[in-house]
Parts: sequence; C-alpha cells; structure tokens
Amino acid sequence: MVLVSVDDHAVEPPHLFEGRLPERYRDVAPRLVRKDDGTDVWQYDGREIPNIGLNAVAGRPPEEYGMEPTSFDEIRDGCFDIHQRVRDMDANGVIGSMCFSSFPNLCGQLFARSKDKDAALAILKAYNDWHVDEWCGTYPGRFIPLALPPIWDPQAMADEVRRMAAKGCHAVSFSENPSKLKQPSFHSDAWDPFWAACSDEGTIVCLHIGSSSQLVITADDAPIDVLISLQPVNIVQAAADLLWSPVLRKFPELKVSLSEGGIGWIPYFYERVDWIYTRHHAWTGQDFGGKLPSEVFKERMVTCFIDDTAGLEQRHRVGLDTICWESDYPHSDSTWPESPEFVMRAFDAVGVPDEEIDAITHRNAMRHFRFDPFAHRPREQCTVGALRAGATDVDISLKSVGKRPQATGATDLVGIATRRS
Amino acid sequence: MVLVSVDDHAVEPPHLFEGRLPERYRDVAPRLVRKDDGTDVWQYDGREIPNIGLNAVAGRPPEEYGMEPTSFDEIRDGCFDIHQRVRDMDANGVIGSMCFSSFPNLCGQLFARSKDKDAALAILKAYNDWHVDEWCGTYPGRFIPLALPPIWDPQAMADEVRRMAAKGCHAVSFSENPSKLKQPSFHSDAWDPFWAACSDEGTIVCLHIGSSSQLVITADDAPIDVLISLQPVNIVQAAADLLWSPVLRKFPELKVSLSEGGIGWIPYFYERVDWIYTRHHAWTGQDFGGKLPSEVFKERMVTCFIDDTAGLEQRHRVGLDTICWESDYPHSDSTWPESPEFVMRAFDAVGVPDEEIDAITHRNAMRHFRFDPFAHRPREQCTVGALRAGATDVDISLKSVGKRPQATGATDLVGIATRRS
Repeated sequence: MVLVSVDDHAVEPPHLFEGRLPERYRDVAPRLVRKDDGTDVWQYDGREIPNIGLNAVAGRPPEEYGMEPTSFDEIRDGCFDIHQRVRDMDANGVIGSMCFSSFPNLCGQLFARSKDKDAALAILKAYNDWHVDEWCGTYPGRFIPLALPPIWDPQAMADEVRRMAAKGCHAVSFSENPSKLKQPSFHSDAWDPFWAACSDEGTIVCLHIGSSSQLVITADDAPIDVLISLQPVNIVQAAADLLWSPVLRKFPELKVSLSEGGIGWIPYFYERVDWIYTRHHAWTGQDFGGKLPSEVFKERMVTCFIDDTAGLEQRHRVGLDTICWESDYPHSDSTWPESPEFVMRAFDAVGVPDEEIDAITHRNAMRHFRFDPFAHRPREQCTVGALRAGATDVDISLKSVGKRPQATGATDLVGIATRRS
Repeated sequence: MVLVSVDDHAVEPPHLFEGRLPERYRDVAPRLVRKDDGTDVWQYDGREIPNIGLNAVAGRPPEEYGMEPTSFDEIRDGCFDIHQRVRDMDANGVIGSMCFSSFPNLCGQLFARSKDKDAALAILKAYNDWHVDEWCGTYPGRFIPLALPPIWDPQAMADEVRRMAAKGCHAVSFSENPSKLKQPSFHSDAWDPFWAACSDEGTIVCLHIGSSSQLVITADDAPIDVLISLQPVNIVQAAADLLWSPVLRKFPELKVSLSEGGIGWIPYFYERVDWIYTRHHAWTGQDFGGKLPSEVFKERMVTCFIDDTAGLEQRHRVGLDTICWESDYPHSDSTWPESPEFVMRAFDAVGVPDEEIDAITHRNAMRHFRFDPFAHRPREQCTVGALRAGATDVDISLKSVGKRPQATGATDLVGIATRRS
C-alpha cells in the first residue's frame, strides 16, 4: 500500500520569515514571542494569535486533548520541524502530504485582516515561498505544495496562483464560504480572475472545513462534543453553495477539493440535489447542460476521508475517481501513527479490491494534485512497509506534557473562534 | 404493501376554531380573512400570517412551484378538507398519516409569540382538540394524532401532553432547537417536566426540520436551490445537540422522531459521533454508560425518509428498527400521487426483502407511534392495491392555477422566514 495524504497541517516554525522579506517589511512581519506565562504567540499587525497550532495534539494521551496547546514545548517536533515531520510520515507509512497553514488560518484570513495590504501581500508571498521552497522543497517528492491566496484582491490572487504555478505549486487554499468573511460569495463574479487563473494553470482549489472562520454552534451551553460532531456541516454547505453557483459551469476545467470533508454524506447529498434539480429546475431556472448536479460534482469535486467505513461501502455512489485519503496530522482527528491499520481495517470491512485501494490511497491524489512521488524514488520504496522499515527508531509512544485548563463549552469556543477570526 | 406516513401536513380550514373556545377568547382567536388582492391570511394577535400552507403544491405542475400559494383557491382540497384528504391518501395507497400544523408553525411557535399567554394556551388547546377530534377523529384508524405543545411553559407542556395522551394522542411536536426560539436549549433542565410527561405517557417527541424557525443561508445572493439542498442540515444539528445533551440519558424511556430528516446521512453521522466519543470522552467527560452514542441513537431516535436509496442500501447501518417512511403531502418534496412507485423503485434498486419492507413501510411506525390501523379494518383492506381500487375516481392529474411572481433568492426567503417567525 502507498499512502498520499491530501490534508495535513504545518505548524509554522519561528524562523519562517527570516531572510524572505524586503527590508521595509521586516519590522511588520509576524514574529513569534514567548510570553511570561510560558505560552508562545505570533504577534502581527497589533494582534496576538494565541494558538500556535489548531489542536496539534499528535502523540499526546487523549486525556490531555483540549482545544489548544499553547507553546512549542507542548507539541511534537514533527508539527513544525520538517526533518522530524518526514520522520513521522515515515513511521506512519505516508509517502506524500499536503499541509495547510496554521497561524495565518486555513486560507490566509489573518492577512486579509491586515491594515497595510501591501505589507500583507509581501508577507503572504514570503509565506508561500517558505512553504514551497523550504517546507516542501527540503524533501523533494514528499509534499504537495499548497499556496495561500491574498483573498482581499481577486486579481492579486490570480497573479499569485500564476506565480506559484511557475514554481510548481498547483494547489491553492480558499474559503469554504467567503461571504462569511465579509467578502463576495461564490455567486458573485468578483472571484472570476482567481477561478480563471486556477483553471488556466491546472491549480486545484482546496476548501478546508473551518476556512469560513465560522463554527456551527447549536446553543451557548452545548458541550464541545456537539461542535466537533458538526464540523463537517460547513463543508456540506460549501458543496451545495458551490454546486448551485455559476462557478463550475463558467470554468469547466476548474477542480475543487473538499478538504477534511469526509465522504459518507455524499451519496445522500447527491440524491437530494438531483431530486431538487429534477423537481424544481422548471421554476428555479437552474441548468446543468443536460447533466445532473451529482454528475457535475463527481467530475469536478475531489473528496477525502480519514476513517469512513460507511462512505467506503458506498464508494461507487460517491464516485471512485473523486476519493482521496488524508491523515490530518497533527490534529486530534488524525489516525497517526496507525493510519495504515485504520484505513486497511475499513477497506477489509467493506471488501475493497486492491486496484480500488490504489486509486483511493494515492492514484487519485497523484492525478488531481499533479503529484508524482515515483519520479523521485521507485514505487517499491514508497510503500508503507518500506517507509516504516526505515523509521523503526522513531519514538511513537504517547507523551504526556501535563494537563491545562480546557475549554469544554461552546461559549469558550466562540471566544477562541472570535479571537482567531 | 401497506404504507403509513409519519410526516404529512394539514392546512388548517377556516372553521377550525368554531365552537371550540370559551366565549372570552372568541374575539382573539385566529381568523381567516380574504384580502382585497384575493389572498387568504390568518389574522392573530396583531399579526398576519400570509401563507396558508408552506409550499402546499401537491397536484400542481413544477413550473408553478414557488414558495407559497396564497389562497385556498390555489391549493388542492385535500390540503385542508379531511374528506378529500382521505381520498387523496387512498389514491396514493396510504392507510395512515401523521399531520403537522401549518399556520401555527411546526411546533406552535406562533402561539409562543402571543402577548396574552392565557389566551394562547386556550387557543392551542382548541387547536389540539380540533386536530384530534375532527382532523384525526373523522376517519378512525387513518391518522396518527400529533399535539402542539405550549412551548413557553414546560409545566403547561407537561399538562397538555398528559391531557392529549388521555385523548389517545401519543405524539407531540417540539422544536429541533428551542434555543433558536430564544428558549432554553436541550442542555438545560428547564424542559424536564415536558420530557418526563412524554416519558411517562409513552408520547414520542417529533422534531421536524424547520421547527427552529431558522433557515440555513450560505449567502444573501445564493439561489434558492442552495437553501432547499441544506434543509436537512438543521436536523443533523438537532440530532447531535440532543444526543450529546443529558435528555436521553436522564429519561431512558423517551423516544424522539427526526421528522423529514432523511436517513442517508446517518451511517456517516454514527461513525463521526462514535469516533468523537472514543477519541475525546477522556477530556470532554461524556459517558453513555458503556454504550456508544450510535447505539443510544438507534434505541431512542426514530427516523424517516421520502425517497432515499443510499440510506436504504445502508438500512442495517442506520438501524432497521428506527426507519419509517413519509409522504410529505402536500409539500413540494412529496412523492404523491406515486408514492408506492417511488418507494418500491428504491426497495428494488437495493434489494430489500419483504419482511424489511413491512418494517419500514408500516410496522416501525405502528410500534413507535402506537398506531394500529388493523384494529379498524382488516390488513388486506389496508394495502396500496385495496385503497387505490376504491379511489379510481380521484382526479390526480396536474392542475395549473397560473403562475405568480416567485421568490427565487435567499434574501426573499429570509423575508418570508422573518414574517413567519
């Protein structure tokens, strides 16, 4: 088995911006500061971002999961150190990984809130250069590069997509719902320069759950389990919003990835949108050019899952060609360091043939994200077994770092989300 | 095949309150008024409720679906006339039906907004009496009675649940999210008298999509198709909210129905909540007494679907004992007058054996809702074939009543929802 994960997370190291910015912006670059209470924060544009990694709890016992580790001492080195990251990937049998950003938020919302947009653009470009050249570039063939876009300026987004494509980066993060970020919605033509650039360059647009800076809160006194259960709701909304918008029909080459979205809800979603189309298009005026909405989804949306037996059982309803796999390292949903065992258990439970396993574990990801690890090393050295054989010395035992006061109610989380957004 | 539908809708006839209220409340009772522009509205407590039926479009061509028919002349008599309703049920092969309210909203939100709560309680009781005695009582063995609760007073709710149970009514509507109605959430103990009464009386609590008076709006300029696609999102939220709340654990006999909620999303939901429980309970403190959340769901939640092949394929994952069927007459999602054909096509597509078809089409509904049509007529006279044989003269052809200006954007709908809530 060969594993390529299309959703993991980098925790940015303190030195990220060193030597990457023109002199006039050096003083305004985000900087990591250790506070008197021992927490590490990024300071930027008059703000303090108290989380260094969203729930970066890989390698810790579940009793110590809370919402946020608050210092680099509390997280595994693989979160932020590229050499240790690759070792952790080896120990988990993962050959390839695409990593989302942490402190700038999932699609760079932080930079969009900056007062000085020229500085913000320079900083965002420096971030992207670090991501491609250092994070992904240190170990060629191990990472799928992923750009952040300057979401306050669609033309600048288009320019950055083209600049990054020239550097070999063919994936870009964007918001699952820009209207929640006080930007135009998917139904506006404001984003057309961006969609056009992605379409031209063969760059896949990745919408990650949480990239609207909105949490699904049922009630102020709801326990945190409710909020965690409902995280996928945002991506279902994004899928519906995008599918009925003009975007996919206007840019017929464009592909979109629903990152950390899961797959088990999709067959139900297909039936619903096809029913709505068949039943209502006569008065709503929707037109998919002779196709059903589900067919358009299958052709244009890329999906992924961590551990989703119900979804795998219905993989042919979902569309086998759309399904990729993810590890979500180092978040609390991650199956690290036992990802191969988790995913094989699910494959075995529903009887997935080898050829389909290959499609789901790496071939679909290689095609949709234009990534070819086999160009860098022979396939037989990319397997779970081969990678793990070279990483037997990696310590994967759980490490306690002590327990902190934790947020356990939705209201606490609203506070966290507000600080973050 | 025998069909019992656990989710249909009554459009209230103008005479509803006649002779049912003490004299001092007769002047304040809701009254139906035909306006100069030909629309019919309910006037109550200084408000006008402009819709007589939420999307009551059965029997009209899809080109004429809009959001709201506005007069009784535009809707099928079966919407509001009990004799014609039974004829429409016969023509569709449906022996039993549970009907939600229309103008008072799905769980009586309208009455909760009244200034004079004594009057509101009297009016609500009159409504319930009409529903049980006239709507359901005219044709014994054809309807599952469903009470509205006075949601502004948990003790009065408990009293009404007991009063209605004494009249043979063992189902009550409630809000999928009372906190969105500015009431305490499921996590509060404020509702305990209500839950206790339902538990004692064997009364099932029905949470219908939309009963939080909230629509899922992705963006102001999103087309209406997005909103329609996302209607089930509210019920997914309700399921998570209730499952992690103390309610089901505090009242171990209580059963809850997720009305018009669909079933295809449930296997995915189970995997998610079980994963969250297994992974996070050590720090969130959740405890299901040795069970998994999905097991508690299967024992205590009742589900239903209109047309959901993906869900039927995974019926054993959903829990065969939980699944009921619904027709949703006269709303636009209804499969009337071809419900038997729709549901058999789905059964055939995934190969459901006869015994399981019986459970899904009527046996589960009979057990969960304490309804026994066979006590009123022999089973062989309750089948689709027998009912249709007696209704060959019912005109089921589509009837055009002309096209009105229609709401087609989310903003229009927000307006409608606001007027309604």
